[in-house]
Amino acid sequence: MAIRRRASKRKFEGYDEDILNWHVHICSVNNFPTAAGLASSAAGYACLVFALGQVYGVEGDLSSIARQGSGSACRSIFGGLVRWYKGELEDGTDSIARSIAPADHFSDLKVIICVVNADRKKTGSTDGMRRTVQTSQLMQHRVKESVKSRIDSMMEAIQEKNWSSFCDLTIADSNEMHAVCQDTFPPCVYMTDTSHAVTSLIHQYNELKIAQGDINHKVCYTFDAGPNACLFVPGAVAEEILAILLLAFPPDSSETPDEYVRGIRVKPITLSKELMSLIDEDVKSGRLKYLIHTKVGDGPQIIRDAAFSLLDQATGLPKSAGCIS
Amino acid sequence: MAIRRRASKRKFEGYDEDILNWHVHICSVNNFPTAAGLASSAAGYACLVFALGQVYGVEGDLSSIARQGSGSACRSIFGGLVRWYKGELEDGTDSIARSIAPADHFSDLKVIICVVNADRKKTGSTDGMRRTVQTSQLMQHRVKESVKSRIDSMMEAIQEKNWSSFCDLTIADSNEMHAVCQDTFPPCVYMTDTSHAVTSLIHQYNELKIAQGDINHKVCYTFDAGPNACLFVPGAVAEEILAILLLAFPPDSSETPDEYVRGIRVKPITLSKELMSLIDEDVKSGRLKYLIHTKVGDGPQIIRDAAFSLLDQATGLPKSAGCIS
Repeated sequence: MAIRRRASKRKFEGYDEDILNWHVHICSVNNFPTAAGLASSAAGYACLVFALGQVYGVEGDLSSIARQGSGSACRSIFGGLVRWYKGELEDGTDSIARSIAPADHFSDLKVIICVVNADRKKTGSTDGMRRTVQTSQLMQHRVKESVKSRIDSMMEAIQEKNWSSFCDLTIADSNEMHAVCQDTFPPCVYMTDTSHAVTSLIHQYNELKIAQGDINHKVCYTFDAGPNACLFVPGAVAEEILAILLLAFPPDSSETPDEYVRGIRVKPITLSKELMSLIDEDVKSGRLKYLIHTKVGDGPQIIRDAAFSLLDQATGLPKSAGCIS
Repeated sequence: MAIRRRASKRKFEGYDEDILNWHVHICSVNNFPTAAGLASSAAGYACLVFALGQVYGVEGDLSSIARQGSGSACRSIFGGLVRWYKGELEDGTDSIARSIAPADHFSDLKVIICVVNADRKKTGSTDGMRRTVQTSQLMQHRVKESVKSRIDSMMEAIQEKNWSSFCDLTIADSNEMHAVCQDTFPPCVYMTDTSHAVTSLIHQYNELKIAQGDINHKVCYTFDAGPNACLFVPGAVAEEILAILLLAFPPDSSETPDEYVRGIRVKPITLSKELMSLIDEDVKSGRLKYLIHTKVGDGPQIIRDAAFSLLDQATGLPKSAGCIS
């Protein structure tokens, strides 16, 4: 195991060398929908690698180890804004992530995830991407040309805290990624009618903000290999966006408001006439399963207070019977 | 008007020169869903140009005139398989169509159109394409690289009557076109969940045919700027495909079978176990409005038998009150 190998190479200062022979009990609980294209495996794997790194006292870069479990996991090792370098080596060992800005770089940045369908997706993202690389001509262009220049523009937007540009680039890259999925033979289609309804709403919202000269309160969306929209939302308009989403995508009658909007609580607000005009007249309920309202996080944390742990610290087993261990 | 200009240049053999001063009563009836991305305006415009050409006795290429009304109309001037040349001139006058094979080139070729939603589409195809050219990086690649080589391959497939290759190329081009639409800012999305359900079914069907070594009975799909699937189907499997579509996309209870499958009549057949396995267990009715079963046509025709005309030859008005004139 990579962590053990790394541990065996370092000097054990204050550690018992015997830990290399330990049997390790691993219990993982994930409070995110799994296999729905929300990078839940990345979060889980990053936590696992971080936790093992702590147990074995491994210092230095863990992202190359995390990457072996799930590509995206190398990003989740860090908090805040992270860049994933593709690397040049054939074996991928230099494909690592680096922190580029702390979580509060864009102050009060919120994340709203619109969970369209947490059912198991049809095409795994790894299989799909392999087929895309093999069959999509547009993917060749994406790899050679557009990603490179877009990453440069994105680094610049982040350095200059140019939120409007950050939004446009995020949206353009998400759409380009799903375009090359569509260009695959047979096509990989992750976004659904509901996903597109969310993006259409966000574009209309942004056009309103642009017309009002308020480009710092734009919102952007990005989609992983699944139907769920991940929105980056300036804190100042998070209540507004949640209110719009609740009206445009009302919950099924079976769902309580608390179940429907999970995460950070907000006060209900009354929308202006302009914002109300963004909402179609014939809304259908139940298109979204629920919304997650959260913020840019700090990466893996050691929870020292047992009250906050998802595991029972005496048995090492999940506290909640509903969790997958 | 271009037809008049052309007419004024030719020698009038047996024509009264006075026709250039005629007032012309034009009445157009279209039995295709309009503004739904089915190129109904192309068909209408090609008919109009052809009819005016007949009235004014204009000979020679009419496709450059038809193109002025609707780009695709230049193709509809001819029957059978037609190639639309993009041309090189800034004013588009050399962007014309040419017949490349007669309607029976691929013998007994059927066309099945799955009409997903004949409501007015959100983005007009001309507006959408303009935005795509302006904002999509992938479109640049499509224009410069892939269309060119794909057209060469397609010409070869047609010349060699290589049906399997014709199918793969048709599918790849349709998906690439919708990929660049998705890559537009804001994205143009024409295909819906139901469109994708049709393509997924066709890919599964083709995989079965490939496994059976029967690649000459593959089916292919293409989508214009709308949600409706246009399927090219070898006559030998048309009944089979219609039967599969009827089971996978059953009509709403309000719809009679005759209203649901329009055009060429076929006998109902019983599907084999393998074909039945392609149909999802949880089918929903009413996803398609109706199916049109037709064949590759011969282009605009003069209807000399009044009984077949959609217009009343005495009044020049539509026979059916329901028609849009």
